[in-house]
Amino acid sequence: MLVELDRGADEPLSLQLERALRDGVRSGALRPGTPLPSTRALAAELGVSRGLVVAAYSQLGAEGYLRLGRNAPPIVAQGIGVAAEARTLAADPEWPHNLRPDLPDYDAFPRAEWLKSYRAALRRAPNAALAYGDVRGSAELREALAAYLGRVRGVVGEPEHTFVCSGFAQALSLIGGVLVRSGRRRIAVEDPSHVVIRAVAARTGLETIAIPVGGDGIDVEALAAASPDAALVTPAHQFPTGVVLAPERRARLLAWAEKTGAVVVEDDFDSEYRYDRPPVGSLQGLMPERVVYCGTASKTLAPTLRLGWIVAPGELVRPLVDEVLYTVISPPRLEQLAFADFLLRGELDRHLRRMRLRYRRRRDALVRELARQLPELEVRGLAAGLYLEAVLPHMLNEERVLAEARARGVGLAGMSEHCAEAVRDPALLLGYAVAPEPSLRRAVAVLADAVRAAG
Amino acid sequence: MLVELDRGADEPLSLQLERALRDGVRSGALRPGTPLPSTRALAAELGVSRGLVVAAYSQLGAEGYLRLGRNAPPIVAQGIGVAAEARTLAADPEWPHNLRPDLPDYDAFPRAEWLKSYRAALRRAPNAALAYGDVRGSAELREALAAYLGRVRGVVGEPEHTFVCSGFAQALSLIGGVLVRSGRRRIAVEDPSHVVIRAVAARTGLETIAIPVGGDGIDVEALAAASPDAALVTPAHQFPTGVVLAPERRARLLAWAEKTGAVVVEDDFDSEYRYDRPPVGSLQGLMPERVVYCGTASKTLAPTLRLGWIVAPGELVRPLVDEVLYTVISPPRLEQLAFADFLLRGELDRHLRRMRLRYRRRRDALVRELARQLPELEVRGLAAGLYLEAVLPHMLNEERVLAEARARGVGLAGMSEHCAEAVRDPALLLGYAVAPEPSLRRAVAVLADAVRAAG
Repeated sequence: MLVELDRGADEPLSLQLERALRDGVRSGALRPGTPLPSTRALAAELGVSRGLVVAAYSQLGAEGYLRLGRNAPPIVAQGIGVAAEARTLAADPEWPHNLRPDLPDYDAFPRAEWLKSYRAALRRAPNAALAYGDVRGSAELREALAAYLGRVRGVVGEPEHTFVCSGFAQALSLIGGVLVRSGRRRIAVEDPSHVVIRAVAARTGLETIAIPVGGDGIDVEALAAASPDAALVTPAHQFPTGVVLAPERRARLLAWAEKTGAVVVEDDFDSEYRYDRPPVGSLQGLMPERVVYCGTASKTLAPTLRLGWIVAPGELVRPLVDEVLYTVISPPRLEQLAFADFLLRGELDRHLRRMRLRYRRRRDALVRELARQLPELEVRGLAAGLYLEAVLPHMLNEERVLAEARARGVGLAGMSEHCAEAVRDPALLLGYAVAPEPSLRRAVAVLADAVRAAG
Repeated sequence: MLVELDRGADEPLSLQLERALRDGVRSGALRPGTPLPSTRALAAELGVSRGLVVAAYSQLGAEGYLRLGRNAPPIVAQGIGVAAEARTLAADPEWPHNLRPDLPDYDAFPRAEWLKSYRAALRRAPNAALAYGDVRGSAELREALAAYLGRVRGVVGEPEHTFVCSGFAQALSLIGGVLVRSGRRRIAVEDPSHVVIRAVAARTGLETIAIPVGGDGIDVEALAAASPDAALVTPAHQFPTGVVLAPERRARLLAWAEKTGAVVVEDDFDSEYRYDRPPVGSLQGLMPERVVYCGTASKTLAPTLRLGWIVAPGELVRPLVDEVLYTVISPPRLEQLAFADFLLRGELDRHLRRMRLRYRRRRDALVRELARQLPELEVRGLAAGLYLEAVLPHMLNEERVLAEARARGVGLAGMSEHCAEAVRDPALLLGYAVAPEPSLRRAVAVLADAVRAAG
């Protein structure tokens, strides 16, 4: 290993190690596929505690630089380097065939209705609304949200417990900061789960503990056995597997939280889209004093609005206020007021009704085209959300398929880039929200080419 | 002391100590004015390292819970408790007499022109602009900003080095995160300087080192002697003293940064308002490879826009991209596009020309009324910005005057709440931007009552 630690430096050894490894991967000195020493071996070599190495590996695993395996040495991840760098800078390259699983149909953003709400907000806002204001966000929006979330998601919360923020990443940054400051250091995360979201959690100082996800959602027994201080879950629609947390697991998860005093963070990112039955209500509604509820307008309206919200248990309200004050001072207000107007006029409900029909048609079209052009793929996770899982036959290499598809202009994701320690069937995550039906047909034809080329 | 540390807990001892002290102050167990043990004494009592106690005291000092003195025990600050809690929740209570130093005239926000820009942005934005996008912000705004900042502030930077963020607090959070991750742990801050901004810096994990500010700005010799890894300065107009960093000190500060490789963070918060001569150019323009430039629309347009920007040295661009990606994913875009249009149409220039005249008139009116109604106050810091310093006669207690004024509905600030270790003449910070001239006259009359009541 090329790591040298400087014991005289101000920088903590853990950060030095993390940085040396990150730079090594970035510079190419540590090549993709290279196994790293075990935590025990590296700790002995460097003369540091094993916990320090565990922490550094865990951070880099969460950031996607390393692939961590239980009882196996970590491996330098594929696909880091120029491509990943470009991807993080321009989060949305213009894919000719856009099957990205994390995007809504932003072409359908209701510009005229939004402008109407923005104009109304700007006309009605008192002058004082243009200053700094309540660090939780505008009172108007927090009231409108409390009503909307109660009605649509069964969320139990007063405007006083509601925070407006700029989407789920910021919500988790804020909550992570509060957890760390309250002495809660270990957070269970679903495995697989969104790789960037795991990195967001890790960056707050939390240690992320990967808990397997099965067909019924997160393994609550394994979670309880790991005895974390908090858990981050997507109960209504798991990302990326698409499963729904089964009723008895919901109950067991809440019983665990109640018994241990742990905090459950509920990421309710796209539950508005359920096609087979009404969406399951939020976990938060069952135990508001132990669950922090988080939602977003990124999947219902457009990601760039950066509008998200938190409904926090009473004990976390004051620490969250501090966290907001000492990181962003307060959230912006004009678009909040516009969104409040948009909610109160029923525009979001109308938009969602339109989009649910549209997405169901696109989902059906994608399933049909996959069955016709790529019958060897097994399709899963159709009940909800904006994407499906297409499991590859075993002889196919997921990374090869992704590379061939991207080279042909198909935007998509793979299952394994979202796995921490989990080993799952190689699979593609295909979104059906962005592309209209004729484009979906063409995209599947190009994808079929890519699959054949990777075969 | 009522502090008990749990060595078996996951929570680091430093955080445990910090939390115990904070809770003690909040609950009232540690009353205002109470001196705490010296770092040496408390470390011995608790059986921990002295550095651990220094870190906890320093964080709480930065957050405003403790007043730290050189060679003196820390003292529990006044004014923490119910009042401070309410103030952080509702950052803008509606003061009948608003002399707050940190607010522009938000009544003058050009609503019609802004709506025009927002409408144009919404009409012109391609669909792809509604997704996630470049984590640095919209290319249109970064280009418009680079041109504007070059022209108006002498900032040297390409759009590639420019980041859009939600104001200076978030800018500093992001920069602090990058500094800590690069091994730079100690940041020099001006003393006095904004108490919330010091807390923002401390929350990122940086240790803040207070460096005295004199009539020519920060003491660069003292700064160099403390050999920090970075320095945070307000060179064009120091908050709260109102002084301008003298030319030879600017040169010495940059020479120090060049020699040591330290990073200078330039907070250029209200330099657009200079009344006696054209504003001094940015420090960044003299040494773009060592200075991170930060600006904001909070003082030129309205705080609630939460629009700020960073122009970073090349070496910090990539780490800043990561920092944004792993905390907020990307900044929102519609208001960015609106601001780009607003800049390109010359609306900001027009607004600033109007406001400079208006603020100068209000400043003159405030000075006149103070001379007439409170001749015992010595007025300083008139050359620039949105507020002035009014030094109290020595027999007056600053906190008493503040309390009497606030009880009468006067919004204002005091010098000592922004002091870390510095001992300065008791003084009021009085803003002249919000209130029109007749209101200023009435506000000074009420303030004069308060001063007499405190005498």
